[in-house]
Amino acid sequence: MTNNSTPTVPTPAVTTGPLPASTKVHRPGVLFPDLRVPMREIALHPSAAEPPLTVYDSSGAYTDQAAVTAIDQGLPRLRAGWLAARADVVAYDGRPVQPADNGFVGADRLTPEFPQRHRPLRAKGAGAVTQLAAARAGVITPEMEFVAIRENLGRQALRAPTPRDGESFGAAIPDLVTPEFVRDEIARGRAVIPANLNHPELEPMIIGRNFLVKINANIGNSAVTSSMAEEVEKMVWAIRWGADTVMDLSTGRNIHNIRDWIIRNAPVPIGTVPLYQALEKVGGIAEDLTWQIFRDTLIEQAEQGVDYFTIHAGLRLHHIPLTVDRVTGIVSRGGSIMAKWCLHHHRESFLYEHFEEICQIARAYDVTFSLGDGLRPGSVADANDAAQFAELETLGELTKMAWRHDCQVMIEGPGHVPMHKIKENMDKQLAVCGEAPFYTLGPLTTDIAPGYDHITSSIGAAMIGWFGTALLCYVTPKEHLGLPDRDDVKTGVITYKIAAHAADLAKGHPAARLRDDALSRARFEFRWEDQFNLSLDPDTARAFHDQTLPKEAHKLAHFCSMCGPKFCSMKISHDIRDQARAQSEAQAGMQDMAERYRDGGDLYVRRTSDPVLP
Amino acid sequence: MTNNSTPTVPTPAVTTGPLPASTKVHRPGVLFPDLRVPMREIALHPSAAEPPLTVYDSSGAYTDQAAVTAIDQGLPRLRAGWLAARADVVAYDGRPVQPADNGFVGADRLTPEFPQRHRPLRAKGAGAVTQLAAARAGVITPEMEFVAIRENLGRQALRAPTPRDGESFGAAIPDLVTPEFVRDEIARGRAVIPANLNHPELEPMIIGRNFLVKINANIGNSAVTSSMAEEVEKMVWAIRWGADTVMDLSTGRNIHNIRDWIIRNAPVPIGTVPLYQALEKVGGIAEDLTWQIFRDTLIEQAEQGVDYFTIHAGLRLHHIPLTVDRVTGIVSRGGSIMAKWCLHHHRESFLYEHFEEICQIARAYDVTFSLGDGLRPGSVADANDAAQFAELETLGELTKMAWRHDCQVMIEGPGHVPMHKIKENMDKQLAVCGEAPFYTLGPLTTDIAPGYDHITSSIGAAMIGWFGTALLCYVTPKEHLGLPDRDDVKTGVITYKIAAHAADLAKGHPAARLRDDALSRARFEFRWEDQFNLSLDPDTARAFHDQTLPKEAHKLAHFCSMCGPKFCSMKISHDIRDQARAQSEAQAGMQDMAERYRDGGDLYVRRTSDPVLP
Repeated sequence: MTNNSTPTVPTPAVTTGPLPASTKVHRPGVLFPDLRVPMREIALHPSAAEPPLTVYDSSGAYTDQAAVTAIDQGLPRLRAGWLAARADVVAYDGRPVQPADNGFVGADRLTPEFPQRHRPLRAKGAGAVTQLAAARAGVITPEMEFVAIRENLGRQALRAPTPRDGESFGAAIPDLVTPEFVRDEIARGRAVIPANLNHPELEPMIIGRNFLVKINANIGNSAVTSSMAEEVEKMVWAIRWGADTVMDLSTGRNIHNIRDWIIRNAPVPIGTVPLYQALEKVGGIAEDLTWQIFRDTLIEQAEQGVDYFTIHAGLRLHHIPLTVDRVTGIVSRGGSIMAKWCLHHHRESFLYEHFEEICQIARAYDVTFSLGDGLRPGSVADANDAAQFAELETLGELTKMAWRHDCQVMIEGPGHVPMHKIKENMDKQLAVCGEAPFYTLGPLTTDIAPGYDHITSSIGAAMIGWFGTALLCYVTPKEHLGLPDRDDVKTGVITYKIAAHAADLAKGHPAARLRDDALSRARFEFRWEDQFNLSLDPDTARAFHDQTLPKEAHKLAHFCSMCGPKFCSMKISHDIRDQARAQSEAQAGMQDMAERYRDGGDLYVRRTSDPVLP
Repeated sequence: MTNNSTPTVPTPAVTTGPLPASTKVHRPGVLFPDLRVPMREIALHPSAAEPPLTVYDSSGAYTDQAAVTAIDQGLPRLRAGWLAARADVVAYDGRPVQPADNGFVGADRLTPEFPQRHRPLRAKGAGAVTQLAAARAGVITPEMEFVAIRENLGRQALRAPTPRDGESFGAAIPDLVTPEFVRDEIARGRAVIPANLNHPELEPMIIGRNFLVKINANIGNSAVTSSMAEEVEKMVWAIRWGADTVMDLSTGRNIHNIRDWIIRNAPVPIGTVPLYQALEKVGGIAEDLTWQIFRDTLIEQAEQGVDYFTIHAGLRLHHIPLTVDRVTGIVSRGGSIMAKWCLHHHRESFLYEHFEEICQIARAYDVTFSLGDGLRPGSVADANDAAQFAELETLGELTKMAWRHDCQVMIEGPGHVPMHKIKENMDKQLAVCGEAPFYTLGPLTTDIAPGYDHITSSIGAAMIGWFGTALLCYVTPKEHLGLPDRDDVKTGVITYKIAAHAADLAKGHPAARLRDDALSRARFEFRWEDQFNLSLDPDTARAFHDQTLPKEAHKLAHFCSMCGPKFCSMKISHDIRDQARAQSEAQAGMQDMAERYRDGGDLYVRRTSDPVLP
């Protein structure tokens, strides 16, 4: 999937093509008939006599059998028409790219600029062009209807609303998501649609407690490793497996240009920590950061189309002494940078002091805030301590301020938290931050398994997702040890899809169990191909099966290598079912059977003395 | 580690040698001074100025720097002296091995018998020789003191009892485990020490809600794949990484002889499902099973030294119709075999009917029961259904019957259970089964991730372990797809060590956090080698780190490839700590600093107008 029309640009190769047995479909809108909301249909074997299963699909055109993608062209600008129809936005000449933006990299090592240039959009005058401003004004945007359709996946397929089976801890998940419901949730601040005006390639998605739990994948180069092509492929690869949002956490050189390549090819919201680039602009010296440099970086990134900014404005000067006796101090990069700045200058954080000006920038582009938890615990010893919760209180203040400016807000959360302290995090966040969506990193439930922190954290992520967290930031096996490669990205994404889905099931999401049940039926009926195709990672499921039973004929076998044919409980269970059904139909309705057996019906003669009961 | 003294026997090679930076130590008893209770000490870098960290060690002599193991000799029979001292046991000529025991395998494919033979022990007369019988009689056995010392790992290292930090849901974990506490817990039926008289190679361990959460690894050949050498190595490999018990679930031929090789070399309790071997003896035809064949198999295995038997006696005839409308029917192998037998014969289960005779066998050898959940759910759709809970009620009846015979009992549990239904399983088991230890398979919290079911189940395992489950049966990545290989065994074990440890932390086990804190300190102080060595899997942690920073010098680096040197929050955090400490010491005690900063002390001049607060 390459296009060599611009030979000077090394066009990255990315992974394309549908997943097994899958077809990309698009649903139109009602309020906005030109919407093309993507979903994935997984076809089942004819013997199943079931319609294809529809699943949520964040993978963009890369898995579309009908699409031709060209990385150096970028994705189609599908929101361009919606934006052109708006009276409150204006195009203008953007800020010129400066040498600092790419870390003063020399010409020989400069990642080429993205070949396509577009004039940025922003709000006219001092207006707010955010989804929150529209929602509060009672306006349903195309983005809102898009996400409503997208979230409903499979719910229409339910013959009738099933009784809710779950514990949602106060969430209010509707049977069917309507555009009006979306609007209302956004207006209340309980959900966000990260969708910068300058990211028209975006397929909108929603983050909130009353919607499907979403996951974020972090990518990005560092000073130690670096390549634009690798990072673009990591983004495409992450969404192929289900990442709903992607953060570009690059900290090396070429940071501006790499980000352009990523955003122009990203159908998912892209988040950043602008502080990282600002720090590169001052040569890595935290003390040299200034509000002016930071502000300029925000505008640079907003013009590029970054959908959400992590802003560590909640870490205040007086919080820092609270961290001194911690086992692991400050482990957030942004947090440590700001703490260093504050201490050096003996001043309150410039992010906190200028937060209203930051809001004014965010509302002009609709950049969503992800208020960073610079004081999150880096070990179970530090979980839920005074520093962490003091910052959370400040994040609550900032949330309300951002809302006054019509800015969309989510709140970042920990980190390292043992299981018994997880719920307190969620409860406190809901109480202090007015139900703004919570976005947590794990949390890791123990510190003792470097190399397996996708697992230590999937436990915490599933639990906090159940309790109400809306967006789960993945952790890869390389956490604490190194930069994730492509395999690590996939492992992290699949692990977090598991956590998010387990949370949806436990919350009682009305459509969550459709996929579990379809896969379990396939399993019980020995439809091996369907079992692979319905799984989160069909390639791995198939490969594992084929390690011991590689022949095609075994895909039809009524057993696997775990137990072999004689011991296959599923196989025996079919016989039992047939036999029990036949017997019961011959004699009585199934409902009566259990009682009849218990009481010693005419079919089974009860032993006169029961040797085992007292 | 091979010994070729018996050239006709192909001696398996197993993995031996200490883990990195680790030394095996042995602690003596007080009541029984000749006890040698194994523990592992992990040495730390001198710069840590910390003593070695002591961790629980189930790996046996294979990781002992001082031991020479010879697989064809078996492990030293360390309990032989304790058993010889008992007046209530007697040696006798055991049951001769019969062709059926090895599935009528031909001479050319026969796995050789284990070279060493020992006369089996059993109770004199009709007595009970179980740990439960001793405990009820007020006797502290060597096994009880052994496990008391073993469980205390690290607690003595605590300067003072730390305040409990956890939620134990009614468990009663003591500050220090005494032999008397062990005796009392066993007498109450709340804990078991699986320790067959005929497994003198065993290093005793305890399973109960008020002790460390334990994990089980399943191994065993099947009709599709088979090799004694592989299975012995899988056992050694599983305990190397932390498996506390191992189940031999072999279902192929040579089942008797393979089991002998395993038990004679196992320092951990070995469990089996005797029904599997019984079924082999009748050519795989469930209907042909008889009580006589089953009974003979129990004696055969009890004489070999199997420490615990899974007995599916809770599945009764009248339960079967309750499974007919399930999505995945009966997924337990033992359950499906018994259900088939019951339906075919139109009779109550012979396991249920003969349970008292089974108890008489178990009490004569001290084989612990693991009452099988033949009706566990095989999909989230079937979780907590009438069939599952009806069987659990029966397991409660059987528990009380076994206790009347002084038999030790644990109860098997699911399976596939979404998060919101997990606690009900634990609560019901505690209520119905009189607090007998719960032993669960996962549970898996979603069905949609074949290939990753170690992860789907680690979420459920950590949670149910927290709620009170005493033994977690691992699930490997191959679950539902094939037989686990050596890598899968390791992944399963490490994953379940994570779940068990996360549970210990959440329960507030007084010593659980020692390892987390030691590792976190190492992390914060950039003691990379210590971080690797303290982790559950030092090899993987090191390999992951070295993928991007392979040089030895980088093991001393104050950063890693994730963020690079400029962005390392830990590095910055050290500067912050030094700076904050210096400032505070110059001016005031640390306790006052936070308040002083907040109130605007003499160090930091507060801005006259706070631009961000309302």
